[in-house]
Amino acid sequence: MSITPAAPDSVVRAFIDERRSGFLSDLAEWLRIPSVSADPERAPDVRRSAEWLAGKLKGTGFPVAEVWETDGAPAVFAEWPSGDPGAPTVLVYGHHDVQPAAREDGWHTDPFEPEERDGKLYARGAADDKGQVFFHTLGVSAHLAATGRSAPAVNLKLLIEGEEESGSPHFPALVRAHADRLACDAAIVSDTGMWAAGTPTVCTGMRGLTDCQIDLYGPDQDIHSGSFGGAVPNPAMEAARLAASLHDEDRRVTLPGFYDGVAELTDEERTLFAELPFDEEAWLRTAHSHAALGERGHTTLERVWARPTAEVNGIGGGYQGPGGKTIVPSAAQLKLSFRTVAGQDAEKIQQSVREWVADSLPAGIRHEITFWGATRPCLTPLDHPALQSVARAMGRAFGERIRFTREGGSGPAADLQDVLEVPVLFLGISVPSDGWHAPNEKVELDLLFKGVETAAYLWGDLAEHWKPAEPALSDAGPSEHAES
Amino acid sequence: MSITPAAPDSVVRAFIDERRSGFLSDLAEWLRIPSVSADPERAPDVRRSAEWLAGKLKGTGFPVAEVWETDGAPAVFAEWPSGDPGAPTVLVYGHHDVQPAAREDGWHTDPFEPEERDGKLYARGAADDKGQVFFHTLGVSAHLAATGRSAPAVNLKLLIEGEEESGSPHFPALVRAHADRLACDAAIVSDTGMWAAGTPTVCTGMRGLTDCQIDLYGPDQDIHSGSFGGAVPNPAMEAARLAASLHDEDRRVTLPGFYDGVAELTDEERTLFAELPFDEEAWLRTAHSHAALGERGHTTLERVWARPTAEVNGIGGGYQGPGGKTIVPSAAQLKLSFRTVAGQDAEKIQQSVREWVADSLPAGIRHEITFWGATRPCLTPLDHPALQSVARAMGRAFGERIRFTREGGSGPAADLQDVLEVPVLFLGISVPSDGWHAPNEKVELDLLFKGVETAAYLWGDLAEHWKPAEPALSDAGPSEHAES
Repeated sequence: MSITPAAPDSVVRAFIDERRSGFLSDLAEWLRIPSVSADPERAPDVRRSAEWLAGKLKGTGFPVAEVWETDGAPAVFAEWPSGDPGAPTVLVYGHHDVQPAAREDGWHTDPFEPEERDGKLYARGAADDKGQVFFHTLGVSAHLAATGRSAPAVNLKLLIEGEEESGSPHFPALVRAHADRLACDAAIVSDTGMWAAGTPTVCTGMRGLTDCQIDLYGPDQDIHSGSFGGAVPNPAMEAARLAASLHDEDRRVTLPGFYDGVAELTDEERTLFAELPFDEEAWLRTAHSHAALGERGHTTLERVWARPTAEVNGIGGGYQGPGGKTIVPSAAQLKLSFRTVAGQDAEKIQQSVREWVADSLPAGIRHEITFWGATRPCLTPLDHPALQSVARAMGRAFGERIRFTREGGSGPAADLQDVLEVPVLFLGISVPSDGWHAPNEKVELDLLFKGVETAAYLWGDLAEHWKPAEPALSDAGPSEHAES
Repeated sequence: MSITPAAPDSVVRAFIDERRSGFLSDLAEWLRIPSVSADPERAPDVRRSAEWLAGKLKGTGFPVAEVWETDGAPAVFAEWPSGDPGAPTVLVYGHHDVQPAAREDGWHTDPFEPEERDGKLYARGAADDKGQVFFHTLGVSAHLAATGRSAPAVNLKLLIEGEEESGSPHFPALVRAHADRLACDAAIVSDTGMWAAGTPTVCTGMRGLTDCQIDLYGPDQDIHSGSFGGAVPNPAMEAARLAASLHDEDRRVTLPGFYDGVAELTDEERTLFAELPFDEEAWLRTAHSHAALGERGHTTLERVWARPTAEVNGIGGGYQGPGGKTIVPSAAQLKLSFRTVAGQDAEKIQQSVREWVADSLPAGIRHEITFWGATRPCLTPLDHPALQSVARAMGRAFGERIRFTREGGSGPAADLQDVLEVPVLFLGISVPSDGWHAPNEKVELDLLFKGVETAAYLWGDLAEHWKPAEPALSDAGPSEHAES
């Protein structure tokens, strides 16, 4: 494999500066397409957005740029082979659909008429996610210019879906259907953010999820609590006992085997988390919550990023109207979700839930459990060469030390991981103040161009430092040795 | 006080037999009035029912028989002074309104066209409660005939309300407004039943009730369980923890002080309960329940009749629709009811609940508690002279040993006890198969006339054996010495 020596970073910056206004005017054109996937009336706009992007990617130089149909909104696929034998293959993920937006929601300007103001570009989709998809176009061009190559140093693929803001209902099927063309060595998700403008970070993983509903049935109908109360099992009480018994006094999850295989935070990771300028008061405001509470022995960031949890999402049973009603309810339900981390096995957790419920309930309470499914966690170790490349490229662009974060939620990234069986990396330049899903969404132009620059450095760095055929890739699944 | 020696019981029976057909034809006339208090269109019928009864009581000989207005349906009050100085004063309670009934609900005959069949009288209200009110008319006539008196041996008062089937919304106000005219030494409630046709019983008390709603507030809005779950307090989880912590492993109530002052069952009472021919399988069918469960060390009958309980009547919080929703809910609520027994103090229990909730919740969960009120328990000791008279009179009528029961529910009887400050006795001849509130309600004619006969013996027995001025009456309130 031959890599053309890269030009100095100043050359890259000069190239990007030169293209700046054309790039922004192209992005604005895309942002003017109101590709709201949640609104059926906008379906033609979502399609127009896909076609616009495919055309722009062709214009950028991608030899392949196609609109892919799904049972819902179309996605865009593009591919640009490196030509270098043994070059890593990278799949960039993003989405071209956007959240709904209307002027009357509190926008200062038309959400679909981008406006540049004070170094920020305001428009629906500016950060989530068109801006972050689009920086890859100028990024790859800068990469080529800086290296003198006619094709990227990696085999570059893009998959930009059109239904992320609607829950990606057809995304797993899409990935499965095109698994051969999507084959890669790593997926890079550009649909996340970083800690803050002055604190560039790379996300290293997301938690998994498995959630369920437990229905409990006691008496065949609501019965009089005077005549029968205190002498028959009460399903609302049993639902409460189940939920309450999920945690011990240290707020650790009591479900048998729940922590089996959990990838514990390394001292290095804990130190890196602790070094982040975390303001718990500010975080609580974001959470709309009035106190922090969780597993003893862990900080708030560790709890939401790296610890598995059990949560009651809903509970209901008996009379919930105004006033009192003296009944023993006939039925109750409990909705539970479990966030998982690398090393945990959702199927084992589901089985443990089934056994725990069956063992916990008294005679006279019948139950049914429905699991809605499972999303696997993903986690890339800090020393993974591809992750190191992302951090290095970002560090060059930002001129600062890159720190590491994780994401507490679970997302379509896991579908890429599971179907394609590759590690998932995250490259995002959005910041919390960008207003995702809110009025006056914006992207910081300075950060947007840092994204372009990061992409410009990344492909060369990856090709130089990563031989994906060599090391076995961590896929965040349970290792066969991790049973303690 | 002079009591005319009573005629032999055979004379009483002969007198009743002679009046049997007239009595039944009068009762049928009353049952034809569809006095459904729940149906506004039946309001004129409820009034007609009251007027019919007042007229019939006058015809029976009551010198006073009045229709009393309330803010809802009218009640009937009647009074027949004994004339004997020092005679006990007794107030009979019942109701003249009935549950709704329609042929299409499954009635074999018109619910408001009484039909005698196989020794039973079928009609809405036959047992609940017109039949049980009406046996007092022929009862007092038989008492007079048997004793040769021109007025009853006790000062006899009747209060027959018209809204019992609608929750007696105006009954407490009615009793308070007329407390002077209702003044008595004991109230006798004829709106209950006995164990079974072959097992005549007297109820000796009802449980009290205090119930509340506990609202819990966590985050100011539902928040994402991926981003925040496991790191902030969850009000649905806290509602579950509260409910679950209400009982220990023996299903005893853990609320501090809850059992303070509880009137424990005596060995005699436990033995008497245990002697009842209790069929738990049949009881479970009545309860529509599939198992018995309650306080360890007590039988099912003890649990529902004589033990205080805590019950979850309703619980709700978070998402309860179809499927899953990965949120930490913003709020949750818990509806709890506490059944109390003699010796317990509802106000102390309410205070204990307030302290328990405040002490149990973590920072970040705000709460509000609303109590809907409190109904006091009532309990008449087995050796109370008036209770002994009721059992003796019933024993003469039935020719069988009378056993004792209690009632797990709470009812308007408690208003009589609380406002008039008198013991409450129960005299009912209905059996569980009578179908209260159900289609094809009936009264067993044999038992109905046992009721007449009991009433015929009761007033003479009471006057002879009870000097109410003498012993201090148990009012089932907390004694000042019962703090252990």
